[in-house]
Amino acid sequence: MSKLQEKERYREELAGRQQIIKNEGLPVIVILEGYSASGKGSALSSIIKFMDPRFFRVYNMDVATEEEKRRPFLFRHAVKMPMKGQFSFFDGSVMDEVTHELLTGKISENKYKEKIGSIIHYERQLHDNGYLLIKFFLDVSEKEQKKRIDKLLENKNTKWRVNKKDLWQNKNYKKCRKLYNSYIQETDNKEYPWHIIKADDKDQVEAIIANTIISEIDYAIKKNMLPQILDNPYKMTKTKKLSKIRLKDKVLSDKEYREKLKVLQKELSDLHNKLYRKKIPVIIAYEGWDAAGKGGNIKRVASALDPRGYEVFPIASPSAEEKNRHFLWRFYNRLPKTGHIAIFDRTWYGRVMVERLEGFCSENDWKRAYNEINEFEKDLTDWGAVIIKFWVQIDKDTQLERFTLRQNTPEKQWKITDEDWRNREKWDLYEDAINEMIEKTSTEFAPWFILESNDKKYARIKALEIIIKEIKKKI
Amino acid sequence: MSKLQEKERYREELAGRQQIIKNEGLPVIVILEGYSASGKGSALSSIIKFMDPRFFRVYNMDVATEEEKRRPFLFRHAVKMPMKGQFSFFDGSVMDEVTHELLTGKISENKYKEKIGSIIHYERQLHDNGYLLIKFFLDVSEKEQKKRIDKLLENKNTKWRVNKKDLWQNKNYKKCRKLYNSYIQETDNKEYPWHIIKADDKDQVEAIIANTIISEIDYAIKKNMLPQILDNPYKMTKTKKLSKIRLKDKVLSDKEYREKLKVLQKELSDLHNKLYRKKIPVIIAYEGWDAAGKGGNIKRVASALDPRGYEVFPIASPSAEEKNRHFLWRFYNRLPKTGHIAIFDRTWYGRVMVERLEGFCSENDWKRAYNEINEFEKDLTDWGAVIIKFWVQIDKDTQLERFTLRQNTPEKQWKITDEDWRNREKWDLYEDAINEMIEKTSTEFAPWFILESNDKKYARIKALEIIIKEIKKKI
Repeated sequence: MSKLQEKERYREELAGRQQIIKNEGLPVIVILEGYSASGKGSALSSIIKFMDPRFFRVYNMDVATEEEKRRPFLFRHAVKMPMKGQFSFFDGSVMDEVTHELLTGKISENKYKEKIGSIIHYERQLHDNGYLLIKFFLDVSEKEQKKRIDKLLENKNTKWRVNKKDLWQNKNYKKCRKLYNSYIQETDNKEYPWHIIKADDKDQVEAIIANTIISEIDYAIKKNMLPQILDNPYKMTKTKKLSKIRLKDKVLSDKEYREKLKVLQKELSDLHNKLYRKKIPVIIAYEGWDAAGKGGNIKRVASALDPRGYEVFPIASPSAEEKNRHFLWRFYNRLPKTGHIAIFDRTWYGRVMVERLEGFCSENDWKRAYNEINEFEKDLTDWGAVIIKFWVQIDKDTQLERFTLRQNTPEKQWKITDEDWRNREKWDLYEDAINEMIEKTSTEFAPWFILESNDKKYARIKALEIIIKEIKKKI
Repeated sequence: MSKLQEKERYREELAGRQQIIKNEGLPVIVILEGYSASGKGSALSSIIKFMDPRFFRVYNMDVATEEEKRRPFLFRHAVKMPMKGQFSFFDGSVMDEVTHELLTGKISENKYKEKIGSIIHYERQLHDNGYLLIKFFLDVSEKEQKKRIDKLLENKNTKWRVNKKDLWQNKNYKKCRKLYNSYIQETDNKEYPWHIIKADDKDQVEAIIANTIISEIDYAIKKNMLPQILDNPYKMTKTKKLSKIRLKDKVLSDKEYREKLKVLQKELSDLHNKLYRKKIPVIIAYEGWDAAGKGGNIKRVASALDPRGYEVFPIASPSAEEKNRHFLWRFYNRLPKTGHIAIFDRTWYGRVMVERLEGFCSENDWKRAYNEINEFEKDLTDWGAVIIKFWVQIDKDTQLERFTLRQNTPEKQWKITDEDWRNREKWDLYEDAINEMIEKTSTEFAPWFILESNDKKYARIKALEIIIKEIKKKI
């Protein structure tokens, strides 16, 4: 077959594969890393020329925006993951970013190792959650790179494409090569291996990339083995079964409540100011029984905060856009900026409660989720975030009282739905799931805190005290 | 009533109103403008203290991010409009922005006037689309402002709150006052007037703001008159009825097609490069009959572009988040950055086609939409964007052929749905709506271009020629 016919062939096949992944609902992530001037951009352009532009996105990850710099380093990559049936192409990605940070001394050896760890489990999670991950590294020799950069610089129409980093890379070629090799080794995986391409001949590069994508898609669609459930690698804290939690004597008088509330809110408000200036992000996650008093509790916390420095996210059932991505995607999209506080009214733990019990995800999905969530929270703490997770606990009778009260008070009726009653019938199933959840996700870096909330006043004061204590640890 | 009782009263009422707007589905935008150190922030904090933080957002609009600066000036405000039943509080807004730009010479007198025009119709559109807009201006005297700034500077814990702009404003107090007065006059409206508050006494400020919000909500819920349909203020271009469009002889031979395609794609690709460096944004909007060949046409345009510099947005029916906002909100969210190209496969014109004919919006809504869309597109051209709107035209028989072909070709079946057949039955109703749409939205700054697409090849070449021609005009 002539070169031209060959080109024709794989371009048509690639276009065809697009329809196949659409029908199969397979999300595909193609990552192009490599030396600058190795021709990533032009390879990409020619690859997608014959694809339907409505079903892929291309991202040039070169420079992070100011907004992105105020989020965890994986944030800008995670929010760009494609929906089922679509492609995301990354022109340069996290490898380029973290290796450059290390080589220019922006991060320490340890921070680098930590980030490698995050990348490894982030990529594994993508794979386990049904993403096809295809990673290419375009390799050019020091000489060849120099030649290409000089060529670009000669022409006034291409000159602007050469930036400091490109020149820096060629100057530090050997250092870079050494680190790139070790990065590739550390992040290689038989399910989503690195494809290293000698980038000397443009046409050849295009052909290899195209044919690799085609065969990887065909393989991904054929194979059907469940991802394995990994053992928990993290240190855990001791936890209690819900049934062992004493609620009875956890009460406060109105007087005590009002006094403590005033003092604690003042203290939290001052802390918020410090947080803001020290750029420490805080994530407060609320889970609990219906009518446990989450809303009122959140209100007492929020009203102590400077409204310009926090956000409250009520989490309802996911939208179509969200359902068709990794279950943590919608939470990546709601992370606070450094110095800000994000309060979640219900959280990513829906995966191992409602989604588990209502069958919205497979057994393998929710069993994997404990570890996926721990990894997610580990990344957030590595980033420097304070994570506080509350389980707001009441007993079954108290819930009944509150449901009935809501039913009978016109201004409160909007708060109670048939679904609440249906969930109540499943109390025992939920209790088992919650016990397992608390046991498996109370890591040392992000333990659960129980708020005994038969007396809402008691729970509110306890929440404020814990938040203050946890924030102080980081300041 | 004592001051404290009064505070209690309006805070409770405010909390109550939150539930009312939730039940009524009323979206509320509260804008706090005014001098720095006039206490906007602290007034806001105390106002919302007793509101449910899950149903409002507070935005400090002080500084635009780099990303925001690459969008139209109203973008960062528009994307923050609340959903039905929710509050958005703006601490400082567009007034502060544009007046500061003029006074510091960042924009000319004319540009300022232009922006005032955009603000006036943007606010009117919010009102007409069911938003309650409450605007406050907090006023302090030059002396008082100086006093407050000095006080902040004295204390090391508050020092950081004072920025250059605050100092600048006090130095240029008289200039500012003069411009603020004229801005307020120009943007005042009896439906959403400016509330000017002497900001000397904190408690009084809070009380006035709270009570105003309460009474405005009560008024907004009681009143029910339809917004009026405005006459079109813009110069229009001549248009043709669809039935008058000659399709028969608009054909190209394969040979002509291939030759022209090659040349035009090369030319467009070079232009894209220039656009990118000149930071000119381009918006290409495709509308047309089902099976008219939009997808293939878009593909031929996109494949000529640098993938890092364009995005294609297929527009499906709106999500809940989108349905509960101004119908243009989801398009504000998809505007290109300067230097980028956004291609829309279906557009905001759905309002006056499918939404009109399927009754997804009221008659007043779609009749108002012609003008609202013209204003939207005017803002985009004022921003510097090239807007190209294509109607892809085929005749009824050609559609039938293509539907049948899709039905009978396995790889194409996913492209045809029952809905396509249902829409086909309404061909004549659609044709009337489309004729009206083209006639009422072919403004001089954003006219419609017809792509005769019985022969898809002809339509693709014509599209490329028009895009190149229109872009060249701006370069």
